[in-house]
Amino acid sequence: MSRSCLAVILAAGESTRMKSSMSKVLHPVAGLPMIGHVTRAVAKAGISDIALVVGRDAEKVAAAAAVDGVEITTVVQTQRLGTGHAVLTARDSIARGYDDVLVTYGDAPLITEAPFAAARARLAAGADIVVIGFNTDKPTGYGRLIVRDGELVAIREEKDASEAERAITWCNSGLMVIDGHKAIGYLEKIGNANAKGEYYLTDIVEVARAEGSKVEAVEAPEAELAGANNRAELAVVERLWQERRRRELMISGVTMIAPETVFLAHDTAIAADALIEPNVVFGPGVTIDAGAVIHAFSHIEGAHVASGATVGPFARLRPGADLAEGAKVGNFCEVKNADIGRGAKVNHLTYIGDASVGEATNIGAGTITCNYDGVNKHKTEIGANAFIGSNSALVAPVTIGNGAYIASGSVITEAVPDNALALGRARQEIKPERATVLRERALAIKAAKKVAKG
Amino acid sequence: MSRSCLAVILAAGESTRMKSSMSKVLHPVAGLPMIGHVTRAVAKAGISDIALVVGRDAEKVAAAAAVDGVEITTVVQTQRLGTGHAVLTARDSIARGYDDVLVTYGDAPLITEAPFAAARARLAAGADIVVIGFNTDKPTGYGRLIVRDGELVAIREEKDASEAERAITWCNSGLMVIDGHKAIGYLEKIGNANAKGEYYLTDIVEVARAEGSKVEAVEAPEAELAGANNRAELAVVERLWQERRRRELMISGVTMIAPETVFLAHDTAIAADALIEPNVVFGPGVTIDAGAVIHAFSHIEGAHVASGATVGPFARLRPGADLAEGAKVGNFCEVKNADIGRGAKVNHLTYIGDASVGEATNIGAGTITCNYDGVNKHKTEIGANAFIGSNSALVAPVTIGNGAYIASGSVITEAVPDNALALGRARQEIKPERATVLRERALAIKAAKKVAKG
Amino acid sequence: MSRSCLAVILAAGESTRMKSSMSKVLHPVAGLPMIGHVTRAVAKAGISDIALVVGRDAEKVAAAAAVDGVEITTVVQTQRLGTGHAVLTARDSIARGYDDVLVTYGDAPLITEAPFAAARARLAAGADIVVIGFNTDKPTGYGRLIVRDGELVAIREEKDASEAERAITWCNSGLMVIDGHKAIGYLEKIGNANAKGEYYLTDIVEVARAEGSKVEAVEAPEAELAGANNRAELAVVERLWQERRRRELMISGVTMIAPETVFLAHDTAIAADALIEPNVVFGPGVTIDAGAVIHAFSHIEGAHVASGATVGPFARLRPGADLAEGAKVGNFCEVKNADIGRGAKVNHLTYIGDASVGEATNIGAGTITCNYDGVNKHKTEIGANAFIGSNSALVAPVTIGNGAYIASGSVITEAVPDNALALGRARQEIKPERATVLRERALAIKAAKKVAKG
Repeated sequence: MSRSCLAVILAAGESTRMKSSMSKVLHPVAGLPMIGHVTRAVAKAGISDIALVVGRDAEKVAAAAAVDGVEITTVVQTQRLGTGHAVLTARDSIARGYDDVLVTYGDAPLITEAPFAAARARLAAGADIVVIGFNTDKPTGYGRLIVRDGELVAIREEKDASEAERAITWCNSGLMVIDGHKAIGYLEKIGNANAKGEYYLTDIVEVARAEGSKVEAVEAPEAELAGANNRAELAVVERLWQERRRRELMISGVTMIAPETVFLAHDTAIAADALIEPNVVFGPGVTIDAGAVIHAFSHIEGAHVASGATVGPFARLRPGADLAEGAKVGNFCEVKNADIGRGAKVNHLTYIGDASVGEATNIGAGTITCNYDGVNKHKTEIGANAFIGSNSALVAPVTIGNGAYIASGSVITEAVPDNALALGRARQEIKPERATVLRERALAIKAAKKVAKG
Repeated sequence: MSRSCLAVILAAGESTRMKSSMSKVLHPVAGLPMIGHVTRAVAKAGISDIALVVGRDAEKVAAAAAVDGVEITTVVQTQRLGTGHAVLTARDSIARGYDDVLVTYGDAPLITEAPFAAARARLAAGADIVVIGFNTDKPTGYGRLIVRDGELVAIREEKDASEAERAITWCNSGLMVIDGHKAIGYLEKIGNANAKGEYYLTDIVEVARAEGSKVEAVEAPEAELAGANNRAELAVVERLWQERRRRELMISGVTMIAPETVFLAHDTAIAADALIEPNVVFGPGVTIDAGAVIHAFSHIEGAHVASGATVGPFARLRPGADLAEGAKVGNFCEVKNADIGRGAKVNHLTYIGDASVGEATNIGAGTITCNYDGVNKHKTEIGANAFIGSNSALVAPVTIGNGAYIASGSVITEAVPDNALALGRARQEIKPERATVLRERALAIKAAKKVAKG
Repeated sequence: MSRSCLAVILAAGESTRMKSSMSKVLHPVAGLPMIGHVTRAVAKAGISDIALVVGRDAEKVAAAAAVDGVEITTVVQTQRLGTGHAVLTARDSIARGYDDVLVTYGDAPLITEAPFAAARARLAAGADIVVIGFNTDKPTGYGRLIVRDGELVAIREEKDASEAERAITWCNSGLMVIDGHKAIGYLEKIGNANAKGEYYLTDIVEVARAEGSKVEAVEAPEAELAGANNRAELAVVERLWQERRRRELMISGVTMIAPETVFLAHDTAIAADALIEPNVVFGPGVTIDAGAVIHAFSHIEGAHVASGATVGPFARLRPGADLAEGAKVGNFCEVKNADIGRGAKVNHLTYIGDASVGEATNIGAGTITCNYDGVNKHKTEIGANAFIGSNSALVAPVTIGNGAYIASGSVITEAVPDNALALGRARQEIKPERATVLRERALAIKAAKKVAKG
């Protein structure tokens, strides 16, 4: 479509019912602020200009809205005089002269590019305004779309609707596309002679038809239009987003045993034939390759898991964790900013941070990379085919060579050469019968405490 | 309402279908026995006297029913002759002469004070009996409420109902309020001339109307009346409770990304603008302040989390954990009976028990407070701005001063003064090429084992 | 039933929509490949011969289908000419002369033995073919069963159905039982004169009736017939399986606070009065005894938990973990191939692998059994009433006697006699004011880094 288009995104709504210290459109869905979802849908529709109408937190909203390839002009709405007025606050942008002006909402993050394209196609075919409608089995409260001979003749508000009109299930979403060269003319003619004294965008239909303009309606799936006015509704929007994305992944070949317990981020990428067990949470920035297995109770963000690698159960991958093919990160292990080599194993109760672990190396249970000295972070480099004995502390910066062997319970502070054995632990002493003495002493203390209390 | 009221709670039902070793009403919902939910609703309704009709586990049921400001008289029901008879076992209490007698059930823990108040208001307005009914789209099996001119003229059992009556969706819950001065009179007139030879409380309507008394009905939401006769139904009651409470919290400003995965206890208090990620389980006694963040996979009981503090993922706070503002408890960490100071960090694989951690102190990965000697528990006191190196063991009782630094892998058994460095670890030794020798030896053993097996 | 029966299981379907590298029927439900569920249902129905019609992965499918007491003949289907043809690929098996031939599907794993028995009972009573049907409120797309005078007169495909027939909710599942002595005759008469040129098993009804044979239909619950053609449907089948099994367990007396968060394996055995908290995942091979408590966030496979034992939260039991009565395995603990004695405690951040822990022994926080030397696994044996101090490493093979006491932070490499105290840790040193020096040095490095960067 070679027509130019401006998207006016209304993101200034009060969020009183959110009871929040931040603007409603900043609340995240799938780890991305709602406004970011909307601007991404706009970008996907090939629209490269946005006028963002914001209220509070203007700078934060603008930052959250940013998306590659789209120019965003932020307009702060200072007065709240209705949606028609809100769109007109973007007058300077509209006046630049676009073919199409799309109006959409910052708190309806499930929208996709499809309805935008469908509406614009009608505009291209000759309509002056195209309203995006939806069919619902619960129309109560919505404006009904009254269509005659293919034209939208009116949006009838619930209170003004006849019995017959109330039975209509074809409703107004509030979203629309307007002929960009006529938009300001229409918008200026919207009046505020109503109970609340507000300028309603909806009235543009009447204005346009009075001028002999052609108004139509196209459909969007109801689920794409869900918005959030309080946090219970926000949770519903999140659920709808998750359900849609999980289904896409499953259809593409990802196995999820219990999809309802897998929480994806907006950018989670999982290849076909990967297996995701129940209770997995993905933060942003994750890529899972084909054939990887994510066991139950895993928490993964900013990480890459290659083919044949396995994670969990009870594993946490933090940003910068990169598991090569066949690597394993097991229970109660945390990996941060670290490369885990092909076939390397980090299986039990371990913290690997700011490190690299070579191919086929085995990290014993309870190993800790001591990467922080209270001020600076340091790096631990472990070679290939090494063996780190259990309960070892590797004090960074430190390097451990290929094939090196660290004895269990060691504290390693200096470089270990290839194939060397390193020990850093005390010799064991035995004190025969001494446990009995200790126990008796402890019991005596306990008894004394009781006496003291009583 | 200045009318006096006695609540008769029927809690003696057999729980054969629960297949349980304890009384049905002791089974918890949201961590509180069902009977406790009912007595709390009674207390919230401003009713200060309860006659508790119990069967097995009488003492435990009475203990679980206890609630502040309410006097509970326990009556043991030895014979099972029907609900009418069960209420009469509380005859001595009723005979004390209350204005109102409320009858409710110990295994319907979702009830709130609202229907009690509504029913009592009708009694105050002149009714003699007020039955609590509910509207349902699945009336099959329930007694239907037959209302004429605002009066409840009959409760028609399913089997006696005409086709037209069966279509009625207005049903009997079994709960009711009776004029306290007439209650015994009515109850004594209930007969047992029926198939089972039982005295049905339901028959009180007929008895009262035969005397010219006025019987009415008020509505309770169906969801408040759900009861549990087996453990599948118990799980449904739990789910309904959780859904109601989650919604209340979200509407009040708490964010829950996936509310269906957050499990609250009966007394969980979470302030607005707190964020609860997916998969969080709360035990009793938790307070979460505004702006706190509870990450995924956290388990919290008996703990306080102050503003700006963060917990998890994979963290466990046990009773007595108190996180000050901005404190962090991270993955695979357990905190029990311990104060974590402002901005202090307990981030990885750590156990802090019976301890205090000062402001801005950093606890390294794998730190263990050794609070137990097999007999007694001892305390660990860590000052402010201290640094506990990773994989350290702090053997209580022990104190670590402000600004002290514990080297990684140390075992600390004696007090560390302010700003001192403490070490308790062996010097590292290197044995060149020794890892190769060890590996060869191990492989030889492996080969020998194979030969022995084969 | 003394009639002989052959089950022909069609398991050769292409699984294009699964987008999988393995055969569809190998995808597991509740940890068991779908084909295994089907063969177990067949075995439960007392049928001891199966002809398994497979396509790709023939050997793996045959292996996954294996079930005690059933003889399975595998037939590879090389051409795809329709279900009627597929059944005939098992001609040699059918020709052995069974009384009944049951046809069922390898990708419908929720089927139970009940519909098989019901259908075979009709055959025994004189029918020649008995089709298994189901009632549904969404019949669209299914063939409708047209019944007259108790006989199934036709299976009407959606496209051929009249308006009236389309309203029929009694549908064809595709499963059926055929008189074994007439089966080959019927099957050979099925033609392929249709749009796709395929031999449809469904046409057997017409064939048989044309010969004057008697065809009937019996009902299976719709939920038992769900199949999986893509991974979203596979997740639905898994959910239906889980819901059915959870309900069975709850009705039998198991408490599940949030059953929808408990994931069972096909063979999970849980006794009455056990308590399963939210978010528990069971792998295969688990037995939980009466009165055991599985706390939230537990992952259990191949393990036994005796009465009064408790697991979790955040515990992992791996194959070979056996908890005796009253034993406890707590948070961030992993137990593998180990016996935990009566009343023994493994409470915090511990790995016990290839070990035995005696009665009433206490394992301190952060204990690691170092069972692996990089090549071989070794055993750790701990006696009764012993105390393992926190953060200890027990280097296997090693034995620790009854009543022995291991000091915190020790590395134990040699046997510890009964009642002995063992230490293996360095003496603590204090360097006054040295922490201040270290901190200043680290800050200087940090500052230098900044300068270098800037």
